Amino acid sequence: MSASFKTIALFSRPQTDGLDGRILDEIDAWLSQRGIQVITQTSRSVRLIQAAGHRADLALVVGGDGTMLGVARTLAPLHVPVVGINRGRLGFITDIPLTDWQSALTAILDGQYAIEERTLIEAQAWRGERQLFNARALNDVVISRSSRAGMIEIEVSVDGLYMYSPRADGLIVATPTGSTAYALSVGGPLMHPSLRGFVLAPVAPQSLSNRPILLPDSCTVELTIHHGRHARLNCDMQTFSELEEGDRVTLRRSRDASRFLHPPGYSYYATLRSKLNWHEIPGLEPRRG
Amino acid sequence: MSASFKTIALFSRPQTDGLDGRILDEIDAWLSQRGIQVITQTSRSVRLIQAAGHRADLALVVGGDGTMLGVARTLAPLHVPVVGINRGRLGFITDIPLTDWQSALTAILDGQYAIEERTLIEAQAWRGERQLFNARALNDVVISRSSRAGMIEIEVSVDGLYMYSPRADGLIVATPTGSTAYALSVGGPLMHPSLRGFVLAPVAPQSLSNRPILLPDSCTVELTIHHGRHARLNCDMQTFSELEEGDRVTLRRSRDASRFLHPPGYSYYATLRSKLNWHEIPGLEPRRG
Amino acid sequence: MSASFKTIALFSRPQTDGLDGRILDEIDAWLSQRGIQVITQTSRSVRLIQAAGHRADLALVVGGDGTMLGVARTLAPLHVPVVGINRGRLGFITDIPLTDWQSALTAILDGQYAIEERTLIEAQAWRGERQLFNARALNDVVISRSSRAGMIEIEVSVDGLYMYSPRADGLIVATPTGSTAYALSVGGPLMHPSLRGFVLAPVAPQSLSNRPILLPDSCTVELTIHHGRHARLNCDMQTFSELEEGDRVTLRRSRDASRFLHPPGYSYYATLRSKLNWHEIPGLEPRRG
Amino acid sequence: MSASFKTIALFSRPQTDGLDGRILDEIDAWLSQRGIQVITQTSRSVRLIQAAGHRADLALVVGGDGTMLGVARTLAPLHVPVVGINRGRLGFITDIPLTDWQSALTAILDGQYAIEERTLIEAQAWRGERQLFNARALNDVVISRSSRAGMIEIEVSVDGLYMYSPRADGLIVATPTGSTAYALSVGGPLMHPSLRGFVLAPVAPQSLSNRPILLPDSCTVELTIHHGRHARLNCDMQTFSELEEGDRVTLRRSRDASRFLHPPGYSYYATLRSKLNWHEIPGLEPRRG
Repeated sequence: MSASFKTIALFSRPQTDGLDGRILDEIDAWLSQRGIQVITQTSRSVRLIQAAGHRADLALVVGGDGTMLGVARTLAPLHVPVVGINRGRLGFITDIPLTDWQSALTAILDGQYAIEERTLIEAQAWRGERQLFNARALNDVVISRSSRAGMIEIEVSVDGLYMYSPRADGLIVATPTGSTAYALSVGGPLMHPSLRGFVLAPVAPQSLSNRPILLPDSCTVELTIHHGRHARLNCDMQTFSELEEGDRVTLRRSRDASRFLHPPGYSYYATLRSKLNWHEIPGLEPRRG
Repeated sequence: MSASFKTIALFSRPQTDGLDGRILDEIDAWLSQRGIQVITQTSRSVRLIQAAGHRADLALVVGGDGTMLGVARTLAPLHVPVVGINRGRLGFITDIPLTDWQSALTAILDGQYAIEERTLIEAQAWRGERQLFNARALNDVVISRSSRAGMIEIEVSVDGLYMYSPRADGLIVATPTGSTAYALSVGGPLMHPSLRGFVLAPVAPQSLSNRPILLPDSCTVELTIHHGRHARLNCDMQTFSELEEGDRVTLRRSRDASRFLHPPGYSYYATLRSKLNWHEIPGLEPRRG
Repeated sequence: MSASFKTIALFSRPQTDGLDGRILDEIDAWLSQRGIQVITQTSRSVRLIQAAGHRADLALVVGGDGTMLGVARTLAPLHVPVVGINRGRLGFITDIPLTDWQSALTAILDGQYAIEERTLIEAQAWRGERQLFNARALNDVVISRSSRAGMIEIEVSVDGLYMYSPRADGLIVATPTGSTAYALSVGGPLMHPSLRGFVLAPVAPQSLSNRPILLPDSCTVELTIHHGRHARLNCDMQTFSELEEGDRVTLRRSRDASRFLHPPGYSYYATLRSKLNWHEIPGLEPRRG
Repeated sequence: MSASFKTIALFSRPQTDGLDGRILDEIDAWLSQRGIQVITQTSRSVRLIQAAGHRADLALVVGGDGTMLGVARTLAPLHVPVVGINRGRLGFITDIPLTDWQSALTAILDGQYAIEERTLIEAQAWRGERQLFNARALNDVVISRSSRAGMIEIEVSVDGLYMYSPRADGLIVATPTGSTAYALSVGGPLMHPSLRGFVLAPVAPQSLSNRPILLPDSCTVELTIHHGRHARLNCDMQTFSELEEGDRVTLRRSRDASRFLHPPGYSYYATLRSKLNWHEIPGLEPRRG
């Protein structure tokens, strides 16, 4: 099955990720030796990432989770599968440690891998009838208060039905991929990548009786800014716009999903345990003395 | 479309639910006047509930959420839709207030209703090769420590892959319907009824770094008792069995779902707000004085 | 004991609090009839509030919790007791409903009241050896990330001993009074006003294993900005300064406490229940059906 | 100052704690060589522990946190300071690792140590006018539902004032020492050992709007069982009694505190970080990619 990957796009941001360029050369040479055409790309430019993706059967990201997130989000519409090699440590979505790159790529070129689809959110912001912008998020869409202003109040409707109007520092709408990112910091649950749902979790909500809610990803969620000057809208923590009161943001599952490709032995649960110390019990004595 | 409900089974537990029998007579008479055959059943017996269900096109429950839960769970394999009328107050799953029974039933007989599928969990407990029992839950399957013993440790595998081994007072596996029940008490998220997932949430876990996890309901979850004498297994809070160390419990989505039937105007979110005071902000001053 | 309150300073912010000026005139006239000298003050100016406080035996605040917070904080060094009348609804710290002003003041002038001391935090910000400023907070001292930048990392030492370095959106240090304000939004516990402690609670911390910590209020807490451009320092939600990396903020219990005066029948717990819906159980069916 | 410790009681439970007896002999010999009289005691009997304590200037516990808890609670009325050496790993309250026993004891005999007082709770259970029992807890007093029955409802009053009536699996009242034990499992905050307060935290409360509350330890807390058959009362996880509806439990700070003695270099915060992984951030990439 190695035949299927004839051209591989190799993405990295050596400076941002503190990555030694020699490792990229090594990987490049190793792939070339195997008759694979390698396209290297170190730019953050959406256009250049897509151009490389268009010509490739597989995207190989070497770097941190941020680099992976950017490449995977950009390539989603091209349906190019993405593999992540983490510089140094095990990353959360770049799951192959740098030390293992050779065995992992050998297995993958040999056809031994699993493909996992990762949902994206498509966000559209509106001011009256005018569309402010349109963006995709692999982790989350977040509306936050300005640090120079007080709480915001956001009215939330789901498929046209009023849900609630939390007053908070912000509101996070996250994919399963994003459930281990910002949403986790505010008490959101972990979501298996193949769960077909989004989580809505407010940041520092005023109400004592709040709790995150999980919605099927077939829903359309509409957020309207009720109170709050200079609220900011972020997709994967990139600020797109300042919002005004009355502005609306519409969220839907993106038609295109990212495709993550994992070498044999990958376990999402193992990553939760090793990266988040999830449910780790240190050398603690039994609590009941 | 009224034609479709020719026979209605009317379920209640007047004593348990503190229900005046005259209201049942009124409903019975009102339905009979409309040419509908009414079968009344006040027993908790699974056999008798099923017998009534077999003869009916629609199950009408008048009482509390407990009564509704029992009838809906029992009738799931028969695919009979269930309507719930709550005595007095608005119930969580018996969503029609008693005062509204006439307008709600008028609409329903008139074909104005929405049908909602509610997932059930099928639990099988095993001691070695011997099956201890087999049961279904509409809310949750819970393994709890005995109140006479300390914490239990449960090893959890998902589709054959090791996930974690929480040490806790117990472990809850809940459906979306159950997300507003016991799981909510231990910090679980709310789940829209149509989300295709289960939540796993430990009760009083020893680890500081725990967090509930959402899994797609296509998974098979296997729980093995590692430590803990006299652990108890409950399905919808009915104790089925004491478990021993080494016993396994296998959980899958049941092939059959309960079908809830709602009159026009039903909103899951409104129920969350009114029944749980979800995100309610009392007469509180803005917190930032 | 009515003799003890010969001069009362009457504070309000009619516009901010949406207060009808006639009620202030009524209260003024009612007090004057009883031979009490009334000084009215509607300014936010610290100097003018203090000037009024210097001449008064009692401060009477009519308005919202924000107005009360500002007056009580400003008058703390003067040891003038403060009474709060809330416009319309029951406030959290302005605990007398406007409808009850006459009976409450009658009781208070009659010597029937309880005095409660409320701790303040004294915050000093330093850049190297230079003191940036010095302020007091009755609710909380908060360091927050800028909405234009990512997480901040704050190193926390207590009495010279390193404690931890949370990475988060912010860090809240709250008094018992502030435990029902911003700290509550991020999962902080409730603290009885007479508890001699502070709570430290991060906002959206990255670590899964965080938990608020309670320290005795005899501690000196030092916060150092490790990472985070344009971090903001707030005392009672008033921004004092942008901080730079390396800036330090030192927190101590203020020598002077605010003195709240309550009419008979006041219960802190009743306020928790009615204002926060604390532990309220709506018309919910027993969860175990 | 070494003169002050002429007689040391050496407590251990070799079997429970999986402790090699030779280490006890070594410590015994080492102390005897220094002219100190050593009394060894391996029983759990309160009478025998107290008898040993009466004759000693210092109690030395070698074992797990459970052994330490039992000895410290029992010796509190005798005001004998207690030192804890943890077998193998660092314990939470037995803070000296076994490998360090020699240097730690050398320092302590040399007068280099800090003394820390740890508050205990005194619990009295009443059925009408009859006192069921009287016990002390160093960690916590817990009322739990029976595993064979549903939720319990407990009415809580503080200094004669009604506070609330949580419906839950149980209610924990914990000292600062107990804040890292069971209370932590249900979302309670960490409390510095010298904080003069108790925390009340329900286990799996039905209400969405619950939150732990901190009270000054000068309060008297009265718990009354409203609903719940076979509820159990535990002090430091030892069951004392089954309670009936109407039974009352009164909680006060015990007149006597335990006195923990720490060698130089002890840091409560370091223990939180190393034992609970408190705020530990594993090799996680910045969450904002």
